[in-house]
Amino acid sequence: MILSIDIRATTILARIWKWLLFHSFFVVTVYFLMKYLHVNISMATIISMIGIVLSILMGFRISSAYDRWWEARKIWGAVVNDSRTLARQLITFTSTAAIDPVHLQGMVHRHIAFVYAMAGRLRHQNTTEQIKPFVFEDEWHSLANRGHQPNLLLLHNLYAFKKMEADGLVSNFEFLALDGTMQRLTDSLGAAERIKNTPFPVPYSYFTSFLVHVFATMLPFGIIEVFGYIAIPIAISVIFIFLTIEQIAIEIQDPFANKENDIPVTAISQAIEIDLKEMLGDRDLPQKDNAKNGVLM
Amino acid sequence: MILSIDIRATTILARIWKWLLFHSFFVVTVYFLMKYLHVNISMATIISMIGIVLSILMGFRISSAYDRWWEARKIWGAVVNDSRTLARQLITFTSTAAIDPVHLQGMVHRHIAFVYAMAGRLRHQNTTEQIKPFVFEDEWHSLANRGHQPNLLLLHNLYAFKKMEADGLVSNFEFLALDGTMQRLTDSLGAAERIKNTPFPVPYSYFTSFLVHVFATMLPFGIIEVFGYIAIPIAISVIFIFLTIEQIAIEIQDPFANKENDIPVTAISQAIEIDLKEMLGDRDLPQKDNAKNGVLM
Amino acid sequence: MILSIDIRATTILARIWKWLLFHSFFVVTVYFLMKYLHVNISMATIISMIGIVLSILMGFRISSAYDRWWEARKIWGAVVNDSRTLARQLITFTSTAAIDPVHLQGMVHRHIAFVYAMAGRLRHQNTTEQIKPFVFEDEWHSLANRGHQPNLLLLHNLYAFKKMEADGLVSNFEFLALDGTMQRLTDSLGAAERIKNTPFPVPYSYFTSFLVHVFATMLPFGIIEVFGYIAIPIAISVIFIFLTIEQIAIEIQDPFANKENDIPVTAISQAIEIDLKEMLGDRDLPQKDNAKNGVLM
Amino acid sequence: MILSIDIRATTILARIWKWLLFHSFFVVTVYFLMKYLHVNISMATIISMIGIVLSILMGFRISSAYDRWWEARKIWGAVVNDSRTLARQLITFTSTAAIDPVHLQGMVHRHIAFVYAMAGRLRHQNTTEQIKPFVFEDEWHSLANRGHQPNLLLLHNLYAFKKMEADGLVSNFEFLALDGTMQRLTDSLGAAERIKNTPFPVPYSYFTSFLVHVFATMLPFGIIEVFGYIAIPIAISVIFIFLTIEQIAIEIQDPFANKENDIPVTAISQAIEIDLKEMLGDRDLPQKDNAKNGVLM
Amino acid sequence: MILSIDIRATTILARIWKWLLFHSFFVVTVYFLMKYLHVNISMATIISMIGIVLSILMGFRISSAYDRWWEARKIWGAVVNDSRTLARQLITFTSTAAIDPVHLQGMVHRHIAFVYAMAGRLRHQNTTEQIKPFVFEDEWHSLANRGHQPNLLLLHNLYAFKKMEADGLVSNFEFLALDGTMQRLTDSLGAAERIKNTPFPVPYSYFTSFLVHVFATMLPFGIIEVFGYIAIPIAISVIFIFLTIEQIAIEIQDPFANKENDIPVTAISQAIEIDLKEMLGDRDLPQKDNAKNGVLM
Repeated sequence: MILSIDIRATTILARIWKWLLFHSFFVVTVYFLMKYLHVNISMATIISMIGIVLSILMGFRISSAYDRWWEARKIWGAVVNDSRTLARQLITFTSTAAIDPVHLQGMVHRHIAFVYAMAGRLRHQNTTEQIKPFVFEDEWHSLANRGHQPNLLLLHNLYAFKKMEADGLVSNFEFLALDGTMQRLTDSLGAAERIKNTPFPVPYSYFTSFLVHVFATMLPFGIIEVFGYIAIPIAISVIFIFLTIEQIAIEIQDPFANKENDIPVTAISQAIEIDLKEMLGDRDLPQKDNAKNGVLM
Repeated sequence: MILSIDIRATTILARIWKWLLFHSFFVVTVYFLMKYLHVNISMATIISMIGIVLSILMGFRISSAYDRWWEARKIWGAVVNDSRTLARQLITFTSTAAIDPVHLQGMVHRHIAFVYAMAGRLRHQNTTEQIKPFVFEDEWHSLANRGHQPNLLLLHNLYAFKKMEADGLVSNFEFLALDGTMQRLTDSLGAAERIKNTPFPVPYSYFTSFLVHVFATMLPFGIIEVFGYIAIPIAISVIFIFLTIEQIAIEIQDPFANKENDIPVTAISQAIEIDLKEMLGDRDLPQKDNAKNGVLM
Repeated sequence: MILSIDIRATTILARIWKWLLFHSFFVVTVYFLMKYLHVNISMATIISMIGIVLSILMGFRISSAYDRWWEARKIWGAVVNDSRTLARQLITFTSTAAIDPVHLQGMVHRHIAFVYAMAGRLRHQNTTEQIKPFVFEDEWHSLANRGHQPNLLLLHNLYAFKKMEADGLVSNFEFLALDGTMQRLTDSLGAAERIKNTPFPVPYSYFTSFLVHVFATMLPFGIIEVFGYIAIPIAISVIFIFLTIEQIAIEIQDPFANKENDIPVTAISQAIEIDLKEMLGDRDLPQKDNAKNGVLM
Repeated sequence: MILSIDIRATTILARIWKWLLFHSFFVVTVYFLMKYLHVNISMATIISMIGIVLSILMGFRISSAYDRWWEARKIWGAVVNDSRTLARQLITFTSTAAIDPVHLQGMVHRHIAFVYAMAGRLRHQNTTEQIKPFVFEDEWHSLANRGHQPNLLLLHNLYAFKKMEADGLVSNFEFLALDGTMQRLTDSLGAAERIKNTPFPVPYSYFTSFLVHVFATMLPFGIIEVFGYIAIPIAISVIFIFLTIEQIAIEIQDPFANKENDIPVTAISQAIEIDLKEMLGDRDLPQKDNAKNGVLM
Repeated sequence: MILSIDIRATTILARIWKWLLFHSFFVVTVYFLMKYLHVNISMATIISMIGIVLSILMGFRISSAYDRWWEARKIWGAVVNDSRTLARQLITFTSTAAIDPVHLQGMVHRHIAFVYAMAGRLRHQNTTEQIKPFVFEDEWHSLANRGHQPNLLLLHNLYAFKKMEADGLVSNFEFLALDGTMQRLTDSLGAAERIKNTPFPVPYSYFTSFLVHVFATMLPFGIIEVFGYIAIPIAISVIFIFLTIEQIAIEIQDPFANKENDIPVTAISQAIEIDLKEMLGDRDLPQKDNAKNGVLM
C-alpha cells in the first residue's frame, strides 16, 4: 500500500512510459505528414464521441477495480477481527479451568502461524520458515511438504479445540463458538484466494486497453487540422490521462500481486501478532516494520 | 474462464463477424449511394447524442453482466469455504470418538460427489458416472434415475450425520453445527441455480441489441457527408466497438453456459476434491487439470 | 418472466403505441408548420443537453428498476433454499425417532401450502382452493376466512414443530434449528411484501415520464430546421427509444404485478413442490407447467 | 408515502415556485438587457459542459437519496418480519406450557407498544398516550417521563422473557432464540435512528444546490444570443427540470421527516398490530387507516 | 459532522483559496498575454471533452468518498446497537440471580469505557484519563501503559462474563449470547480501524487532483479566444466548482480525522453512555454536549 505521495508519479510512469513515447512519436509524425503532404482530415466530433464512450467504460473499469481492492481489504479486516475474537475466546474460556499455559499459548501461536501462512500463500511465497517459531516442531515437520498450509493449520487448531472439549477444559457451548470463529476464518481465507485466482474478466480488460490505443491513434487526426502545432502537447496530455487511468485500474485490481499498491498483508499479519501477544500478557512485543520509502507491504 | 490473452480476439470475433461484415457492407453502400446520387444528409449532432445514450445504456449493461458473473464466482467461493469447513468439522468432531474411518471417508467423499453433481447440473451435464467413485454402490443406484441429485446428496449426508448423533459419535451441538453448514451449502446451490435459470431481463438485452443495430445503420448517414471516404474505416471501427462491448456483456452474463468465459466449475470442483483428500490425510492426491489453450473450465 | 424473443416487441409496443402515435403526429405537424409558415427555430445544442440529462436520469431509473427485480428474484431464491433446508431438517431430524409418516408428510405439505399462499398473496389472488390439497381439512376451514394465510401457515407449522419437541421426536437443538429456518422464511415473506407494497418513489417515476414527453415535444423544433424532412423518421426513432426505455423500467420495477415480466412465482412454487415431494420419497411427481408462448408465470 | 399521482405536481411546485419565479424573472430581465443594450455574450459550449457536470452530480445525488429512502424502507420491513417472528415464537414456545393467556398477550402487546414508540420517536412525536392501551398501567407510569421509550420497552420485554425462563415456561434454548429476535429489533431501531439523525453530508447537498443556482444564472447568457425570445421558455423549462430533480432528492433523502414522501411508519405499525392480534386469535381486528388524499403516513 | 449551513462555505473556502487564487491569477495572465501578443489558440472541443472525463472521474471519486463516510457511520451505528443489546442482556440475564449490583454496574461501565477508548483511538487521542471513571482503579493502572486499550477492555469484560458463568450467575446459553455480542463489537472496532488506517488509494486521489489542475491550466486557452474578457469570471467559476468537488471528497473520505466533517464519535459515545445508564436505572443522567457553532464532534 502506497502511503507517500513522492513515489506515485514514478510508479505509474515506470509502467506507461513506453506506450506514452510510442504515441507521442506517432502524434508528431502525423503532424508533419499532414503539414507537408497537405492532407486534411478532421474528425473532431467522432473523436469526442469515442472519448466519451471510453470515459464511461473507464468509469466502470476503475470502479470495479476499486471494489476488488476494497473487498480484499475488508477480507483482511475480517481476519484481524476474527483473530482477536479467537484469542479472546481461547483466553477467557479457559480462564476458570486448569489449562497448561503452554497449551493455550500453543493454540494462539498456531493461529499466528495461520495468518502468516495465509499472507504468504496469497503472494505465492513459501512460508515454511516463517511459521517455524509459532508451531511445535513435529507439527512443523508434518506441514513442511504439504499442499495447503493455512487450511491444515485451521484443521490442527480445531483438533486442539476438540481435545480441550474432550478433556473438559471448555464446554460444548464454547467449542461451538470456537468452531464458528474457525468457519469465519475459513470464509476469509477462501474469499482472498478467490480474488487472487480470478482475474478481472480478460475480455473486459483487454478490450478497454485496445480501445485506449485505438483512441490514441485516432486522436491526432481529429485535432491537428483544427489546432495546428499546439495539438501535439494536447494530444500527448490526453493520451497520458487515459493511459494513467488504465494503469491505475491494473495496479488496483490485483490486490495480492506483491506490488506497491497491494493490500499490506505483511504489516497486517504483524499487527495481529502484536495484538494477540499483548492479549496473552506478553510484555516483550515485536516491533512493527515501518513503511519503507512510503510503501507498506 | 479465459486466462490467456491470445484467444481473446478470436473468441469475440467468431461471434460478431457476421454482423460486422453486414454493417461494413452497408456503410460502403451508403458511401457510394451518397456520392453518385449526390444525396446530402448530415446528422452528426443527433448521431452523437444517440451514441452517448447508447454508451450510458451499455455502461449499465456491462456492469450488470459483470455483477452476475462476480456473484456466480462468489457462490462457488462459498462452496469451497463450506466444503473445507464441513470436512474440518467432520474430521475433528469425530476425532475423540471411535468412528469407523471408512464411514468418515464416506461422508467426505459424498460431499465431493455433491460438488461434482452441482457443477454438472449447472451445465446441464449428466454426472451419474462422475459421482460413482464417491458414493456407496447401492446409494449410487438409488440416485441414478432421480431428479435433483445434488439436493438428494445433501439429504443423504444429513441422514448420515443424524445417525452419527444417534450413535453418540457427535454431540447435539456438533450436529447443529453440521446442519448449519449444510444450510449454507443449500443456499449456494440454490443461488447458482437462480443465476442459471433467470436470464438477464429479456426486454433489456433485446432492446440494447436493437439499439446497437439502429445506431450502426444511422452512423454512415451521420458522418459520410462530413468526412468523405475516411468515414468508412471510422464507421466500421465505431460499430466494431459497440458490437464488441455488447458481445462481452452477453458472454459474461451467463456464467454457467459451458463457454470459455464460464466460472471454471470443473477446476474448482477438482480443487475441492484435492483439499478435502489432503485433510483426510491422503498422500496420493489427484492432479489438477491445467488450463487448455488458456481456457480453464 | 419472458423467455422467448418473439413476444418482446409486441409486449412493449402494445404499451407505448398511443404515445408514439401522438408524438409522431406532432412531429409531422411541426414539420409542415415550420415549412409553410417559414418559422425558423433551431435549438440543437439545448436539445442535446436535455437528451444527455435525460439519459443520465434514465440510467439511474433503469438500474433501480433492475435492482428491485433482482432483489425480488433473490427473495424467491431464498424461499427455494429454505424450503429444501426445512424439508431436509424435518426428514432427517425425525429419522431416528418413531414419527408417524403422515405427520411428517403433513408438515412438509403445509410448507408447500405456505409457498403457494405466499405466491398468491403477492399477486392478490385468493389461494384458498389452491392450498386445499396440502393442509388437513379442519385447518383448511380455519384458514378460509382469515387475513394473512401465509403468516398463519408459518405459525401452524411452528406449533407442529413445538409439539414434536414436547413429544420427544426432535431435540431442543433441532427445534431451535427449525425455528431459525422459519425465521428466514418470515424474512423472505416480508421482503417480498415490502417490494409489492412500496411503489418506486412516485415523484421520481412521474417526473422522468414527464421529462420524456417534454423532450419529445421539443425535439422536432430542435432538428427540423437542420435536417429537413429526414428529421421526421429521426425524431420518431429517438422518441421511440426513450419511450421504450421508460416502459421497460415500468415493466421491471413491479416484479409481482401479474404481468409477463414478473418473477415466475407459480413456476418456482411448482419446482419447490416437486423437490420436496422427491425428498419425501414420492415417485409420482407432478409435471412442471411449461412456458406458454415464451412466458413463464 | 405518496400513492396517488394527482398530488405530485402540487407537492413539488409548492416547494420550488419561489426560486422558479425568481429565475424566470431573471431570465426575462437578461433578455431585455441584452436586446436593448446590444450586449452580445454567447457561451453555449461552457453552459453545455456545466450542464453535463451538473447532471452527473445530480445523478449521484438522486441515487444516494434513493438509497437512503430504500434502506429506511428495508429497516421497517425488518421490523415487520421480526415482529411476526417474535409473536410466533412467544405463542408456540409457550403452547405446551401452562402460561397465563393474559401474560402472553401482555408480552405481544408490549411489543406493539414498542413499534408505535419507535415510529413516534423517529418523527419526534410524543407517543406516551398512544402506547397506553398496550402496556400495564404501572409500567406505563414508569415509562411516561423517561428518555428512550422504545429502548426501555425492549428491556422490559426481555425481563419478562427471562422471568418465563426462570419459571420454566420456556427453555434455555427458546430464551436464546427470543434474545436473538430482540437483538435484531435493536439493530433496526438503531439503524432507523442513524438515518434520522445523520443528515446527508451538508457540503454535498449545499454545493449541489449552489451549483443549480449558478447554472440557472448563467443559462440565459448562454442561449439568448442564439435563440432570441424563444430562449425564455427554454431557459425556464431547463431551470424547472434541475430545480425539480434537486427538490425530489431533498424530499426522499430524509425518510422520517413527517412529510408526504416519508416511509409510512404509521400504516406499517398498524399492519403489525393487525397481524400480531390475528396470530393471538383475536377476531376483532382494528381497521387500517386508508391513504388520505393519496398519501399514506 | 456539520449540522449548520453557515459554516459550510468558510470551511471549504479555507482549504481551497490558495489554489483558487493561483488559478485566477493564471487566467488573468493568459487573458492579457493573448490580447497583447495576439496569440490565437482555441481548443474548446478538447477542453469540453476533458471536462466530461473529469466529471465522470469526479462522480466516481465523490461516490467512493461518500461510501466510506456512510460505512463509517454504519459501524458506529452498530456500536450503538450492540451496546444497548449488551446492556440489556447483562441486566436481564442476571435479573433472577443474586448478582451484586456493583458488579453488574461495573461491567456496563467497562463497556462505556470501551466505547470512549474506541472513539479516542480512531482520533489518535489518549483516552487514559477519560476512561478513569468507568473502570476499577487497579484495572485502570494496568491499562494505562498498554498498547490497544479498547481490545483489552473487551478482553476484560469477557473475563468478567466467564467468571459470572463459573459462579452460576448466567447460564452457558447466556454466556454464548454475550460472547456473540462481544464478537460483533470486535468486528465494529476492526472495521473502524480499517477505514482509519487505509487511505483512499493514493494513485486515484493524486491523479484526480492532478487532472483538476491540468484542466484548470488549459481552460483559459480554451475559452478566452471565444468569449473575450467574460471568459475570466467563467473560467474562475468553473475552476472553483471542480476544486470544491475535489475538496468535499477529501473532507468526507477520512471520517475519523478529527475535522468538522467527521463522524461525531464523541456525541455518539455520550449518547451510548446516557442510554446505558438509563437502562441501569440511573436518574441522574449526564447532559449531552450540544453542537458547537453548528459542528457536532
